[in-house]
Amino acid sequence: MRSEEHRVAALDYAREHRAEHLEILLDYVARPSISTQNIGVAECAVHSASLLRSAGCTARIIESDGYPIVLGEMVAGPDAPTVLLYGHYDVQPPEPLEAWTSPPFEPEVRDGRVFGRGVADNKGQHLAHILAIKAYNETAGATLLNVKVLLEGEEESGSPHLDDFVRAHRDLLSCDLVITSDGGADPSGRPLVSFGVRGMLGLELEARGAAMDLHSGRFGNIAPDPAMDLVDLLASMRDPDGRIVIEGFHDDVREPTPGELELAANVPYDAHAFARELGLAEPYVNDTLAYARGVMFEPTMTINGIASGHTGEGAKSIIASHALVRLEFRLVVDQEPALILEAVRAHVAKHAPHVEVRYEGAMAPSRSSAEMPAARLIIDEVRAASGREPVVTPSAGGSLPGYVWTKTLGVPSVLVPYANHDENNHSPNENLTLDAFYGGIETSIYLLAALAQGEWRLPTEP
Amino acid sequence: MRSEEHRVAALDYAREHRAEHLEILLDYVARPSISTQNIGVAECAVHSASLLRSAGCTARIIESDGYPIVLGEMVAGPDAPTVLLYGHYDVQPPEPLEAWTSPPFEPEVRDGRVFGRGVADNKGQHLAHILAIKAYNETAGATLLNVKVLLEGEEESGSPHLDDFVRAHRDLLSCDLVITSDGGADPSGRPLVSFGVRGMLGLELEARGAAMDLHSGRFGNIAPDPAMDLVDLLASMRDPDGRIVIEGFHDDVREPTPGELELAANVPYDAHAFARELGLAEPYVNDTLAYARGVMFEPTMTINGIASGHTGEGAKSIIASHALVRLEFRLVVDQEPALILEAVRAHVAKHAPHVEVRYEGAMAPSRSSAEMPAARLIIDEVRAASGREPVVTPSAGGSLPGYVWTKTLGVPSVLVPYANHDENNHSPNENLTLDAFYGGIETSIYLLAALAQGEWRLPTEP
Repeated sequence: MRSEEHRVAALDYAREHRAEHLEILLDYVARPSISTQNIGVAECAVHSASLLRSAGCTARIIESDGYPIVLGEMVAGPDAPTVLLYGHYDVQPPEPLEAWTSPPFEPEVRDGRVFGRGVADNKGQHLAHILAIKAYNETAGATLLNVKVLLEGEEESGSPHLDDFVRAHRDLLSCDLVITSDGGADPSGRPLVSFGVRGMLGLELEARGAAMDLHSGRFGNIAPDPAMDLVDLLASMRDPDGRIVIEGFHDDVREPTPGELELAANVPYDAHAFARELGLAEPYVNDTLAYARGVMFEPTMTINGIASGHTGEGAKSIIASHALVRLEFRLVVDQEPALILEAVRAHVAKHAPHVEVRYEGAMAPSRSSAEMPAARLIIDEVRAASGREPVVTPSAGGSLPGYVWTKTLGVPSVLVPYANHDENNHSPNENLTLDAFYGGIETSIYLLAALAQGEWRLPTEP
Repeated sequence: MRSEEHRVAALDYAREHRAEHLEILLDYVARPSISTQNIGVAECAVHSASLLRSAGCTARIIESDGYPIVLGEMVAGPDAPTVLLYGHYDVQPPEPLEAWTSPPFEPEVRDGRVFGRGVADNKGQHLAHILAIKAYNETAGATLLNVKVLLEGEEESGSPHLDDFVRAHRDLLSCDLVITSDGGADPSGRPLVSFGVRGMLGLELEARGAAMDLHSGRFGNIAPDPAMDLVDLLASMRDPDGRIVIEGFHDDVREPTPGELELAANVPYDAHAFARELGLAEPYVNDTLAYARGVMFEPTMTINGIASGHTGEGAKSIIASHALVRLEFRLVVDQEPALILEAVRAHVAKHAPHVEVRYEGAMAPSRSSAEMPAARLIIDEVRAASGREPVVTPSAGGSLPGYVWTKTLGVPSVLVPYANHDENNHSPNENLTLDAFYGGIETSIYLLAALAQGEWRLPTEP
C-alpha cells in the first residue's frame, strides 16, 4: 500500500471517530496541570502516557529534575526517517477565574469551540498528533516513519529542565526533524508554518525603600520612593522611541536574510483589522514589514506586571515600602539569555544599584532555515490538508524551547500551530475550535505520510 | 485680675480635674465617627456640641453640604481679639482591626497612653482646647478673649465642603488668628509650632492598551504596552535628578524668606537616626537644610500606588490591557492645585494623549509668616507651657486645609500639634499620651491668656 493510500485510510478513520476524539479532549482538559502553581502536573503526566499507549505507542514517564518527561514512540524501521513531535501537558494558571464564562477545568463546547484552560495551549494540539498516530495504528498497524512524541510538564514555567534532559538523552531523542504544534493560526485564518521562535528572559526587579509604608506628606522628598525608582530604572532602559538601550543588548541580534525578509514582507497584515481585533482605536503598527520585523526579528521589553502601594478602594497617601516589576525580554537569534541577563544586571548596577534583580527563567531563541527541503514539504502538506495557502514566517513572536532541538540536538525545528488564532491562550476563556482540533489531526496525518518519504532529510553533521 | 492670674487659676482647675477630663476623653473616643465610611458622624456632632456647651460656650450644629459643622463660641467683648480654634470630630477608619491591641472604639489606658481611634487625630487635641475654655469658664467666668471653636466632620475625607462653608460664613467666622492642634510633636519630643502646610493634588492615571491581556510573545512590539506607557509618562515628568519638569509646575513656587530658611536650618535632624527609624541602610538626605527644604519648601511627586498585569504567584507572560497609577503631588505656596492639574493635563496630552487623567482631590498649600508678632507670642507660650524649646517650622510636610483660613478667610493660621509624635494616626493602635493630653490643655490655657493681649493682631486689610 502506498503512503497516499495509508493517508486516506487514516483520514477516514479520523473523520469517523470525531465524537470519540472530542470526548478524549474534554477529559484531558478537565485535568488541571498547572506547573507554575504545582497543581496536578505529575498526575496529568500519567494520563498523557496512557493516551500515547492507547494510540499504539510505547510510552514511558521519565523523571527529570522537574516534572517528568512523557516519551511516546512508534517504530517503523531503522531506515525510515524519524520525526519528533514536541508538546507540553502543563497549562497556564486560570486566574482571573471570574472572567471565565465556564469554569476553566470544566471544558464546555459552545459555538463550535471547546472552552477550557489548556485546550489550545497545548493539550488539544499534541493530542491531535497522538490521534493521528492512533489513526495510522488503527488502519495501517503503525506509522510509516519512526515517530517520537515528547511531552513536557514545564513549558509554562519556561522549560527549565528540558535542555538538560535533551543533553542527557541525545540517543533516545535522535531524529531528523522536530515538529511542534503550539500557538495559533495566522489571524487571517490561514494556517501558519514558522521556522523559528523568539527567546525569552524573565526577571523580577524589586526596589525597597523604608521598612514601612510612609505618610507621603510627612516624608515626601526626604525618603526613597521605590515605585518611582523602578519607573526611573525602567525608563532608563529604553530611549524615547522605545528602543532598548541597555549596553550590549543588541550585539548578537542576527539580521534577517533576504529570503527571510521576503517571507516577512508577505505575511498577511491588515493594520485596521488587527487594531479592531485588539480593541484599539487605531493601528499600533501601520505597515506589514514593520509589523513583521517587530514580531519576528526584533527583541522586546515588556512589563508582565508591576505593583506597588495601594490602588484599591479609597485613597491612601503613602509612599510604599517596596515596588516590584515582572520584566520580560523576548530575544531573537543569536542573543544569548545568559549574556542579556549580564547586560541587564550591569545596567541596574549602574543606574539603580539598590534594586534587586531576580532571574525568573529564560529560553534561547531559535531559527531554522525556511529554505531546506523539509520546509517545502511541510508547507505543501499543510496546504493540502487545510486547502488554504499557509502563511510562512521565518519566526514566530512567542517562545518555545526550539533551541533544545536546533542548538542542543542539532536538528531543524518547525512550528506548525493547529489552534485558531483567537485561542485566548494565557487568557480567560481559552478555546480551541472544533475545526482547528479535527483539522489538526488531519494535518498531522498528512505530515506523517509525506515525511515517510526520506528525501527531505538533511545530511548529518560529521 | 490680670491675665496671668487668670491663667494660674485656670491651670489649677485643669490639674485638679484631670481624672474627670480623662473620663470625658474616653467617652468621646468611644463614639465612632468615621466620615469615609458614613458611620456615626452626625451623632458625634451632637456630642461635640454638648462638650462645647458644658465648657460654657454657645454651640450650634450648622448643616453643610456634607457632615455638619459644629461651632462653639465664647464672647469676651467687641474690642477683645478673636481666635478661632479648628479641629475635626471625624476619625480615620480603624481597619485592619486585628492589628489593634485593644478595640479601636473601646479606648483603654495603658502605659500612660490612651489607645483608640481618633484619640490623637483629632478628638484629644480639640478637646484640650475645649477643656482649656472650660477651665477659664469655671474660674474666671469666661475666656479673656473671644474664642470660636470650629469642628468639622469631613477632615478625613479631605474637607471637601469646608472652603465653601467658610466662604458662606465669613462674618460668623471672622477672627484675628486660627490655631489648629493636629498631628504630633517633633520626633525629638520637643513641641512643634508650624506656620504652614503643603497642599495636595491627587490624580489617578490610567493607560489602556488592547481590550484584553495579550500574549507578550505573540504581541510584543506590535501592540501597546500600557504599563510601559505609564512608566514612560511618569519618567517624562521628572529629569534624571528627580526634579519635576512638567511645564509651568514650578511657576508659582514661592522661595522661602531668609527668616524661614534660618528656621529650617535649625530643625533637629539627625540623618542617621532618621534613616534608622525608617529602616534605611543609609541616610536618604544628609544635611539638615536639604531635609528641611525637601519637606517644607519643595513640592513632591509621589506614587501612592501603581498596578498593572500580574505580580502574584506564578509567572504570566502577558502584556496587560491596562495600567493604573495613583499619583500625588504635594504643593507649596503659591502653587494652585487647579493650575497644577491643568499643567499635568497638558503634559499628559502632549506625551501620552491616550492616558486618562482622573482628578481625585486637592488642597491648596498655606503658609503664614513665622515672623509676625503672634508667631513670637505663640512660640513663647508653647515654650513656657511645656518647659521645652519648640521646634519652629515654616511649614509641615503634610496637608491640612490651612488655605481656608489664610486665603479664603484672610487670617494667619498656626499649627500647634499636641499629640506625641508616635501617635499612630491613620494606623492601628492610635494613641495619645496622658502627658500630651494634659499638656495640651495647659498649653491652650497659656495661649488663651497670652492672646488676650491684643498687640499681636495684624492690621485688617483695607
